[in-house]
Amino acid sequence: MTRDVHVVGAGMIDFGELYDQSFDDLLESAYLELLDDVDHGVDPTADIDAAWYGTIDMAGEGSSGAAVAHATGLFEKPITRVENACATGSDAFRNASIAIRAGTADVALVIGAEKMLDDTAGLIQSAALERLWRGRGVTMPAFFGMRATRHMEEYGTTREQIAEVSVKNHANGTKYPHAHQQFECSVEDVAESPTVSYPLNLYDCCPVTDGACAVLLASEDRAEEFTDRPVRHAGWGLSTDTFQRGADAALTNFPASRHASSQAYERAGIAPDDVDVAEVHDCFSITELVTYEDLGFCGEGEGGRFVEEGHTRLDGDTPVNPSGGLLSKGHPIGATGVAQVAEVYEQLRDEAGAVQVDDPQVGLQHNIGIGRNATGAVSCVNVFERP
Amino acid sequence: MTRDVHVVGAGMIDFGELYDQSFDDLLESAYLELLDDVDHGVDPTADIDAAWYGTIDMAGEGSSGAAVAHATGLFEKPITRVENACATGSDAFRNASIAIRAGTADVALVIGAEKMLDDTAGLIQSAALERLWRGRGVTMPAFFGMRATRHMEEYGTTREQIAEVSVKNHANGTKYPHAHQQFECSVEDVAESPTVSYPLNLYDCCPVTDGACAVLLASEDRAEEFTDRPVRHAGWGLSTDTFQRGADAALTNFPASRHASSQAYERAGIAPDDVDVAEVHDCFSITELVTYEDLGFCGEGEGGRFVEEGHTRLDGDTPVNPSGGLLSKGHPIGATGVAQVAEVYEQLRDEAGAVQVDDPQVGLQHNIGIGRNATGAVSCVNVFERP
Repeated sequence: MTRDVHVVGAGMIDFGELYDQSFDDLLESAYLELLDDVDHGVDPTADIDAAWYGTIDMAGEGSSGAAVAHATGLFEKPITRVENACATGSDAFRNASIAIRAGTADVALVIGAEKMLDDTAGLIQSAALERLWRGRGVTMPAFFGMRATRHMEEYGTTREQIAEVSVKNHANGTKYPHAHQQFECSVEDVAESPTVSYPLNLYDCCPVTDGACAVLLASEDRAEEFTDRPVRHAGWGLSTDTFQRGADAALTNFPASRHASSQAYERAGIAPDDVDVAEVHDCFSITELVTYEDLGFCGEGEGGRFVEEGHTRLDGDTPVNPSGGLLSKGHPIGATGVAQVAEVYEQLRDEAGAVQVDDPQVGLQHNIGIGRNATGAVSCVNVFERP
Repeated sequence: MTRDVHVVGAGMIDFGELYDQSFDDLLESAYLELLDDVDHGVDPTADIDAAWYGTIDMAGEGSSGAAVAHATGLFEKPITRVENACATGSDAFRNASIAIRAGTADVALVIGAEKMLDDTAGLIQSAALERLWRGRGVTMPAFFGMRATRHMEEYGTTREQIAEVSVKNHANGTKYPHAHQQFECSVEDVAESPTVSYPLNLYDCCPVTDGACAVLLASEDRAEEFTDRPVRHAGWGLSTDTFQRGADAALTNFPASRHASSQAYERAGIAPDDVDVAEVHDCFSITELVTYEDLGFCGEGEGGRFVEEGHTRLDGDTPVNPSGGLLSKGHPIGATGVAQVAEVYEQLRDEAGAVQVDDPQVGLQHNIGIGRNATGAVSCVNVFERP
């Protein structure tokens, strides 16, 4: 029997176009926010045993654990860098939690950061899609756009229903202080925004954003040193899959999300309808709509109706992305999953301010990513329970 | 009380200039060698629960777990990519072992690969050193060369003693089938080979090498399904440090190696003189000499005399790098640490053929790396016990 693990603090910086901050600045800012957030305080050198660090190193300067040692002063400690495409932050979190469970650390830092707007970002975004696909014009929006048209064809999902995701998340984002692009938009605004890759328009796409986030984890026997209201990490799942499944590829779902969430639900001993609040991966509006189905929040093909009926709004029965999601908040890749954990932590402590949902008991965090190239997918899901 | 973890199989390919193999080919070849190596066989889909994958992605094509899913067919499984500079492979191994200990997997694959000779290798090797240092001509050989001159000045270590490391490792490498550069050399040959960065000459430097390696880990309760002679993973340590310590920087040792090995010895409940065979990080001859001291095989400043007296030869009392080390075998970064684990596994099973040392009970694997830039260091150490 291994130990339970709890989140005991979270430090988030304002996401945005942070040209005035270096990569080290981002790490340091998130870390200092975390130290400031821990209810009973933390003595870093004495308390923190190890760290896991997520970045895809988009700007080509953040690789290896030494970056975190220098930004935090946590010298001599074990610091592991994890990279797993868009699930980088959530998988760094997963590895840290597992290590505490194993007893190799009592208290661990998880920190994620990305500078998306410097240097090589465009180059790498392009390189993320395999030669075969890139040569045929399959950029990221095109790849997700194809999923949207297929979902429309297969299930009668409408352009308006897809836009409802953007409308909801941008409305939430105006109330979330750390969100990058804070503006409200209507279904018409989304439909009339410039086409990026049919049917996805500009407001269907998350912005390109710099950011960082840090959370602190502790074993069940140490958690109360740091807060009276720790949030339990109840379950987790990670799945690495392929899009090259030949005839059995539905193209309307992400099997990796299904496998990762099944693992997480099983570990947590819960069912999808136990989830009271979720931060999910809406890199594009269609991604969130499909994710409702993959996580079991609604049935196959019902994602469009589910968002249209308001189930996932702040006051719905299954609020999704109260923070504004990637669409409003932005998607600094290594930070994204860590920030979702921080947001669920705040929700389950009733500290989410203007975006607080009503009395959530169980929260979920989800990422889906295109791993290495357009033929591979990765998804990571973490489930949390309120104190 | 968490579970013990054992190595139950290892698959190694011939390291070399593998222009005829793609990155996927390297992964697949090492994986197939592993499947072939497991004594009682392994049913990958049924048996392997998860994977940890090490690469620094030198050639810009191997990032994220999806690369391993495609090369092995292990779809749907959790696959985490770890990067930690030259300790990438050994830290991937460490994370896998911790996860089994935590009970989140029973059987795990660890696989590391690097293509060093394609595309961007030179660019990244240069980028590994911070702007400040690079502008002053501090390449990797220059960085380690400065450590050598300091060691000579401080302890009277001689050029010939440093060369003895290369002589020993190249002699071993001629007997190790997977080594890249198989030739014997004398102290005079090393001294007369072209200067790279004083006092380091060409034969003091490891070659630039492609390669891959895979090992299989199992929990104590599953290990015997795969082999009657599992090798126990007895201890591990990871330390992330800095070289910017101001006045207290000795420059003649690597504090990260000291911290990582202390952690590993403590976890394994052993002392340095219990180690019967070691694969250590000889990226340059001087690195191995300093590492004798950092791992406690000899006293401070005694590394030169220690190698000269033959203690670390195949027939010495503390054989180091029977495989030929990085100097002969090569250093495909993500594969290096995994290959060292594979070699210690073979030694502790008495299966190391012409480089077998006499009846080893305890084996050690060690990496030291320059993390991110020349101001950061990372070291990972793993300790193993024979069946």
